[in-house]
Parts: sequence; C-alpha cells; structure tokens
Amino acid sequence: MSKKMNYNYAFVFYDVGEKRVNKVFKVCKKYLSHFQKSVFRGDMSPSKLINFKSDLNKVIDKEEDFICIIKLMNDSVFGEEVIGHSKNSTGEDLII
Amino acid sequence: MSKKMNYNYAFVFYDVGEKRVNKVFKVCKKYLSHFQKSVFRGDMSPSKLINFKSDLNKVIDKEEDFICIIKLMNDSVFGEEVIGHSKNSTGEDLII
Repeated sequence: MSKKMNYNYAFVFYDVGEKRVNKVFKVCKKYLSHFQKSVFRGDMSPSKLINFKSDLNKVIDKEEDFICIIKLMNDSVFGEEVIGHSKNSTGEDLII
Repeated sequence: MSKKMNYNYAFVFYDVGEKRVNKVFKVCKKYLSHFQKSVFRGDMSPSKLINFKSDLNKVIDKEEDFICIIKLMNDSVFGEEVIGHSKNSTGEDLII
C-alpha cells in the first residue's frame, strides 16, 4: 500500500496468548476505547500510533500474538449497524 | 447518521452465545472472508447486506447476541498494519 493517506482513526483486533491478554488490553485501553471483546476503536493520530505500536511491541510475543490495526481517515468514513443486543460482554464500558 | 454513502465493503464482529456460534460463523462465511477469530471482512454491496442481515436474523438470539457491521466505501479507504504473527487464527475453530 503505497498510497499516502491521513489516518486519524483506528480499529484494533487482537488475538494474543492468554498470559499477555491483560497487558495488551491495558495498552489498547490507554490509547483507544474498548469496543467489543478483543476489539478496540478510537482516534489515532499518526504520532499516537507510533507510541501505541511501541507499547504493544513491549508486551507481545511476536511469534505467538497477532494484532491488526485498521486505520481510517476519521470516524465519518464508515457506517455502522448493530444487530442484536449488547449484554456488556466487555465487562467494561461498551462504547457503540 | 443520516449521510448517504455508498458502502461496498464491510468488517463484521460478533459476540454470540456458544450454541449459535457455528451458525453465525457459517452465515458470515457465506458472505465474507474470515479474518480473525470472530471478525470477518469482505465486499458487501447494499443488496448483499440485506440478505446477510436477513440470514443473521434467522440464527441469532436478539436478546443475547451482538453483531456489529462496520461499512466502508471500498477496500481502499483504510490502511492496515499487522503486528506479530498470524498463527492460523482463521483455523475456523478458534472462536473466542
């Protein structure tokens, strides 16, 4: 992807080993809002992204863990539909 | 969100009761590509979306389950970064 876009919003999904879940959760929580299970979202400027990735790299095992960051220009480039009901599966403040 | 945009791509996250996970997985798989754990993605035209939601509504329990569809114009409006390694998390059986 060589295109240059100005990304300022992100969705983050992770799939990490059990031992590191809490650490990764805390790093994500520091930068983003918890959205659903292992999904976070929120404003993410390029400079914030650098710090976020640096923090993640300190806690994950690169051989075992997988984290995907989907970057968007802002929160108005996507639409959202929810089906069903949120039973606060995050145990946190579920932000929809 | 009253804006009218032409969405043709989607990310789907779900958090559904254990008994319905396989059914929801199959519906998502019919329309999209499995991306990670309970996350799917792929082309999703407005008409396909109608069928997708109709199929989902047949299998979920609206009181218990939660499905979120993030709609994007196409697959070039987002950037993507992966940290770590995918250990075949799409092995179809890994649903957390």
